[in-house]
Amino acid sequence: MMTSQEFQPGRAFARQMDETDPLARFRKAFLVAEPDLIYLDGNSLGRLPRPTAERLQGLVGKEWGRDLIRSWNAGWYGAPARLGDKLAPLLGAGQGQVVVSDSTSVNLFKLVMAALGLRPDRERIISDTLNFPSDLYILQGCCQLLGRGHHLHLVPSADGIAVDLGDLWAAIDGRTALVSLSHVTFKSGYLYDMAEVTRRAHQAGALVLWDLSHSVGAVPLELDRWGVDLAVGCTYKYLNGGPGAPAFLYVCRDLQAEALSPIWGWFGQRQPFAFDVDYEPAEGMARFLVGTPPILSLLALEPALDITLDAGLSAIRRKSLRLTAYLVYLVDTLLAPLGFALGSPRDPARRGSHVSIRHAEGYRINRALIEEMHVLPDFREPDNIRLGLAPLYTTFVDVWEAVDRIRRVVKENRYERYPPTRQTVT
Amino acid sequence: MMTSQEFQPGRAFARQMDETDPLARFRKAFLVAEPDLIYLDGNSLGRLPRPTAERLQGLVGKEWGRDLIRSWNAGWYGAPARLGDKLAPLLGAGQGQVVVSDSTSVNLFKLVMAALGLRPDRERIISDTLNFPSDLYILQGCCQLLGRGHHLHLVPSADGIAVDLGDLWAAIDGRTALVSLSHVTFKSGYLYDMAEVTRRAHQAGALVLWDLSHSVGAVPLELDRWGVDLAVGCTYKYLNGGPGAPAFLYVCRDLQAEALSPIWGWFGQRQPFAFDVDYEPAEGMARFLVGTPPILSLLALEPALDITLDAGLSAIRRKSLRLTAYLVYLVDTLLAPLGFALGSPRDPARRGSHVSIRHAEGYRINRALIEEMHVLPDFREPDNIRLGLAPLYTTFVDVWEAVDRIRRVVKENRYERYPPTRQTVT
Repeated sequence: MMTSQEFQPGRAFARQMDETDPLARFRKAFLVAEPDLIYLDGNSLGRLPRPTAERLQGLVGKEWGRDLIRSWNAGWYGAPARLGDKLAPLLGAGQGQVVVSDSTSVNLFKLVMAALGLRPDRERIISDTLNFPSDLYILQGCCQLLGRGHHLHLVPSADGIAVDLGDLWAAIDGRTALVSLSHVTFKSGYLYDMAEVTRRAHQAGALVLWDLSHSVGAVPLELDRWGVDLAVGCTYKYLNGGPGAPAFLYVCRDLQAEALSPIWGWFGQRQPFAFDVDYEPAEGMARFLVGTPPILSLLALEPALDITLDAGLSAIRRKSLRLTAYLVYLVDTLLAPLGFALGSPRDPARRGSHVSIRHAEGYRINRALIEEMHVLPDFREPDNIRLGLAPLYTTFVDVWEAVDRIRRVVKENRYERYPPTRQTVT
Repeated sequence: MMTSQEFQPGRAFARQMDETDPLARFRKAFLVAEPDLIYLDGNSLGRLPRPTAERLQGLVGKEWGRDLIRSWNAGWYGAPARLGDKLAPLLGAGQGQVVVSDSTSVNLFKLVMAALGLRPDRERIISDTLNFPSDLYILQGCCQLLGRGHHLHLVPSADGIAVDLGDLWAAIDGRTALVSLSHVTFKSGYLYDMAEVTRRAHQAGALVLWDLSHSVGAVPLELDRWGVDLAVGCTYKYLNGGPGAPAFLYVCRDLQAEALSPIWGWFGQRQPFAFDVDYEPAEGMARFLVGTPPILSLLALEPALDITLDAGLSAIRRKSLRLTAYLVYLVDTLLAPLGFALGSPRDPARRGSHVSIRHAEGYRINRALIEEMHVLPDFREPDNIRLGLAPLYTTFVDVWEAVDRIRRVVKENRYERYPPTRQTVT
């Protein structure tokens, strides 16, 4: 493991790190239209892979424009399963356990309902207050829909960075149907020990459902080896699948015969082209498909996956750890004196690929970074500036520049021009 | 209304019809890569609008590639509602009642569950055996999910073309929570009198949910005027939104405060960026959104809508009626002697924009048309060759050529080379 003694505070050191970065060549696989822009939102929307732009041209002009309906039989129908199988090695999953389909929330809905169907005598779902609110809403909606005493129990976090694992173990008991957590939490970047949580859940007879949105493509995963039951995740963050690219879902082979989707879709029917009037679920993962998938958004994912597979998750994780450690070092060295505190775990083993830094003026500092410093982080209430480091294209100079520009915003009081209001969206 | 006396059997007549077609110029708005290909599947996958190809290039290169995450605030977030409002005039719907989101099946699931929630003391759903099997599966799944005596009653069709309306009226009674039908049925192209069915359902205290997939963009609709409660539909058929383009859903204003989605999504939350841990449904249609929409597939729809709006549904319906009447005339004149029967309504007022023709060797004739005659119809069990006529780009010569090539396949016994097996999909 690296220690802070390895790092130096100057820009020259960052340049030197980039020169010896074994993943440096992958940055060329992405469009970098504004080299001076420090893009730290790859954990929210990954950059455009150059091969994707080419693929989309062929997809639109040839597959849709020229071949028309024939393209369904030539490859579109099989795309949700084919892309799932292509993605599977990044999850540590064998073939036939992953499909790409719908949004993360819709997939979560399917799998939560499937899980509760597999534990009909249990009514409790365990999650934590660090989970995506979007996931919590789905969990709440499922409890409401079943309406038979089902409820969601949230393990709180005292520091906003992690929960006390003792609290989590205590919450998982014989009433627990399902433990549903984000592998890497969206705000602090806390990385759960998936194997251990899964083991504890199984000990209590509960199922686990992991949201991998903030870990897939950045953190090595071993779903099969760790005995994970169910998982979902998005493909537009570290996987660079494009805005709103369809999400994936994983159901371990052992559960596939019993688990049922609540949404009985045509793509999940055993023989869709028999046009039978009665639904019969398909064998295997196909039963979790619903309707016609958005082909343009779906197939844009394919060339992006090739890049991650080519780089390899071990190398990606090594660089990610080095990037986040370097950022933590610079925060401690250069930003702590200006009122910043780390909002992410110090232990690299418990950290994903983004780092949050907290400051009382976080919202206004974030505005100034975007409006006048050509830095794109994002902001999460109440005071987190979230810095996503995407190992395939984020450079060490990017990290140095980000910290230097943050420092200038504070030293030059640039943030004071901005109103201290919450971020809203029209 | 046109009569068959207006038509003549030769190719020259078709050319003459094209020359006087007021919508002829719209064909140029679409890519026609193979002019000799007779494409009669526009009711399954509409052709590529030329402006869409351009739009996608800008969307990928500039909005995703260059502007990155900033594009969410610059227009992506609002796209489901903006496109819904743009589509609304084609539905006869006022603003704020339509959003574009997810697949037709997922949207149907949301609205069926919402409808059953609005009629908690009623357990019966009425549909017919002519409805999309995909819709019937969703309806069956919803009944199973609620599991409180909910059941689906299907009104049968004796001839496979239409149901006896007396049977439908008799089925709609005080136990009926919901009447859910396809406005234009997928096989025969039967067009329901939406105003009348809606009136009868309301008389019995039931809600209506229309699937508009085979009518939107081809048949004028007046959802508001006809008092429709709920509707869904797809955008990749006559609307030419692209393969698997996201679907739309309509909830009439009066029901919006009470109707709730079963899938509690982040995009349906009142204040998504407050990141509250408790779900609170948004006002209006936003509550029916779920997760991050597939932006490439979603925005590809926008230029396509402009074309349909420019042409206008009255002109589109006029041409559609003329195309289908001409096709029926040619079927009667040239194909009936070869063993073909009409599988669609003879009454133009009850016909959508596709026409099915039935033949004992339909499956093999369809194969021969695709493999060696450069015609793309599609086949629906057991014996329907379905011919979709898309008024924006289908020509009268296309119709004449299709019939002529079908005639040659039968006269020259070309279909005999093909095995008489069912269509399957990998």
